[in-house]
Amino acid sequence: MIRQAVGHTFEIEKTCPHTSARAGFITTSHGIVPTPAFMPVGSQATVKALSPDDVRDVGTTILLSNAYHLYLRPGVDIIEKMGGLHRFMGWDGPILTDSGGYQIFSLASLRRVDDEGVGFRSHIDGSEHFLTPEGAVKVQERLGADIIMALDECPPHDAGIRKVREATDRTHRWAERCLKAHGRQDQALYGIVQGGIFAELRRESAARLTSLDFPGYAIGGLSLGEPKEVMLAMVEETVACLPTDKPRYLMGVGSPEDLVENVARGIDLFDSALPTRTARNGALFAATGRLNIRNAGYRGLDQPIDPGCDCYTCRRFSVAYLNHLFKSKELLAYRLATIHNLRFIMRLMEEMREAIVRGSFGEFQREFLGSYRTTDEEVRLEQKQRWLERSVRVRDEGDGPEDPGVIA
Amino acid sequence: MIRQAVGHTFEIEKTCPHTSARAGFITTSHGIVPTPAFMPVGSQATVKALSPDDVRDVGTTILLSNAYHLYLRPGVDIIEKMGGLHRFMGWDGPILTDSGGYQIFSLASLRRVDDEGVGFRSHIDGSEHFLTPEGAVKVQERLGADIIMALDECPPHDAGIRKVREATDRTHRWAERCLKAHGRQDQALYGIVQGGIFAELRRESAARLTSLDFPGYAIGGLSLGEPKEVMLAMVEETVACLPTDKPRYLMGVGSPEDLVENVARGIDLFDSALPTRTARNGALFAATGRLNIRNAGYRGLDQPIDPGCDCYTCRRFSVAYLNHLFKSKELLAYRLATIHNLRFIMRLMEEMREAIVRGSFGEFQREFLGSYRTTDEEVRLEQKQRWLERSVRVRDEGDGPEDPGVIA
Repeated sequence: MIRQAVGHTFEIEKTCPHTSARAGFITTSHGIVPTPAFMPVGSQATVKALSPDDVRDVGTTILLSNAYHLYLRPGVDIIEKMGGLHRFMGWDGPILTDSGGYQIFSLASLRRVDDEGVGFRSHIDGSEHFLTPEGAVKVQERLGADIIMALDECPPHDAGIRKVREATDRTHRWAERCLKAHGRQDQALYGIVQGGIFAELRRESAARLTSLDFPGYAIGGLSLGEPKEVMLAMVEETVACLPTDKPRYLMGVGSPEDLVENVARGIDLFDSALPTRTARNGALFAATGRLNIRNAGYRGLDQPIDPGCDCYTCRRFSVAYLNHLFKSKELLAYRLATIHNLRFIMRLMEEMREAIVRGSFGEFQREFLGSYRTTDEEVRLEQKQRWLERSVRVRDEGDGPEDPGVIA
Repeated sequence: MIRQAVGHTFEIEKTCPHTSARAGFITTSHGIVPTPAFMPVGSQATVKALSPDDVRDVGTTILLSNAYHLYLRPGVDIIEKMGGLHRFMGWDGPILTDSGGYQIFSLASLRRVDDEGVGFRSHIDGSEHFLTPEGAVKVQERLGADIIMALDECPPHDAGIRKVREATDRTHRWAERCLKAHGRQDQALYGIVQGGIFAELRRESAARLTSLDFPGYAIGGLSLGEPKEVMLAMVEETVACLPTDKPRYLMGVGSPEDLVENVARGIDLFDSALPTRTARNGALFAATGRLNIRNAGYRGLDQPIDPGCDCYTCRRFSVAYLNHLFKSKELLAYRLATIHNLRFIMRLMEEMREAIVRGSFGEFQREFLGSYRTTDEEVRLEQKQRWLERSVRVRDEGDGPEDPGVIA
């Protein structure tokens, strides 16, 4: 039996001869997504600080929202009554919803996990909930995204092999139940590979999920604080065991350097709150690396953040003005910075895609990684750890209103 | 001698036969302002939560900024280096800057007032400053607004007649010095009438300022917590003593009902942070009065805030979505609400102007005040008092980042 959601297809346009990078198209019920693609995060039915028009204007072709957050607030009833998530949030392009597994397993108030499902307390009002794989699919069917995700169990990055094996096995059993429960033909249901940092479990997970024949496969449980080489190695192990003719989605990855490295390893789809979260903290992407817009040296700088950038912010405002808005904690700061960082990422995706199609991706990769100064690895892991600790109670991909760097 | 700033003229198109309302045009170096007009408040070189394009799109023809705030941050040097305030903030339409007198006299850290000027501590870093009338003009000349304000002393609304007389006298002496100091011919310098709630002082102040022949006159020291009838009576007393052929600007007034009442009394220009501040607190204007968007009754309401409104927010989003954004403390909430409230006020100004030109302003006034449910007077005064107490340390017209209702 071939499972294929109506309206969901994946077509590869070109494959890089030197790396595993590929350019393709995912067709969904709400439009075509040229891949590789990055999905801005709109957990609460809004990409923080942006209107849907802003999201479109930066070049977004598909965005991510989150079933856990929307189930709790405003509630599935409300969104269904309003005609579904697209209409509710005023975005008529493709949407992918995560099942919320990752969020729930990050909750401090996680209550009980067994084969039946997972019990937890709401981070908003403390109310008790129990989510089954079938329930996760039902919620996402009612929200109405174009691509939905199976319920998975995502253990912490430092979990031991026994714990990870248990979670991975449960993720497989849940994946089968999600497939059986899924009836909406205008949506595609993707499976999620787990397996932590254990190559053997990753391969096993990919093989078992592939046997279920999902229309697309996500790689979960990475970018959670493990060293970068480990992440890249796990991606390679997993991709090698996934079918070439289905989209591959690496969850939670979004720094410029990681996007380039993972496109080279054959990933088609990404999401991360990093570009938007760092924007609200005043860390802005430029060709040579991140700059801190609050830096006193930018007080009187009469030029755009990145002279090569075509975003609204760079076309209209100086670094000096942005510096002033951030220092003054003006709300406009967060919108302008988010527009810039997302446009930077979207341009990067567009450039990578063009390079793949032209056959020059290897060259692009070398040039980009040669000139873009990445954050020091030790500093990066430290920051990641702090963020994980901070956001453990409300895991809104760190994109929550509690983010202390923004609204202090 | 006739003082007339180059590029600043005032022309009356039509006067209402039954009230003192008039429709006119103020011409400035950056464009024409049809009057009566409302100025959104952008104290820190940004109308809170909006981009300059948003400000334009709601129908703004002139906005207000604040010399006190800009002098302290980012500093006049920076703005001058960036080519002036218009270019710095990306707004090429008319701007009026207040001198900052009102802000400085509201500071808890006010140090010393004498005829020379006023000493104060910065609310940002505690640094000591001394501002003279000449200095206030100089700062505003360097910022480069189209209309600038004389330095005035603004006593609290409950000050006794002796204190108010002293402040009013000083305001007159300072007004003369401001006029002498002002050299920039592409700017108009307006004088400010003081006199508190004492009709005799108001008349005297208006007469003395009129004798100095300013190109425009503001009425300061009202809407500070005095009863509404007193405010209206003081406006009537003052307007009667001002020349008919110069613009009259009532400072700090901006509720829909007050705008209508004061246009009827012959006011041409207004500013207030009320529409933007209340928007960020979730109080939205509708034809029948303010609604609280956080109200549980709006959770599932599938219609715009105001079906008659042509703003971006009402054209694109439901009350249910706005309710969700406010409940979730999402940044988009503040922008969408601000766009709506400002557009409501701008439409009101446009409708009043049309009614004056058509000769039906009296009717418009009766109809509007008959259907718009105003906030209960007692509740209003209590709210005002709480706000005045809260914002006494940073008097950003209550529009500061500290506003506890917004970022909590």
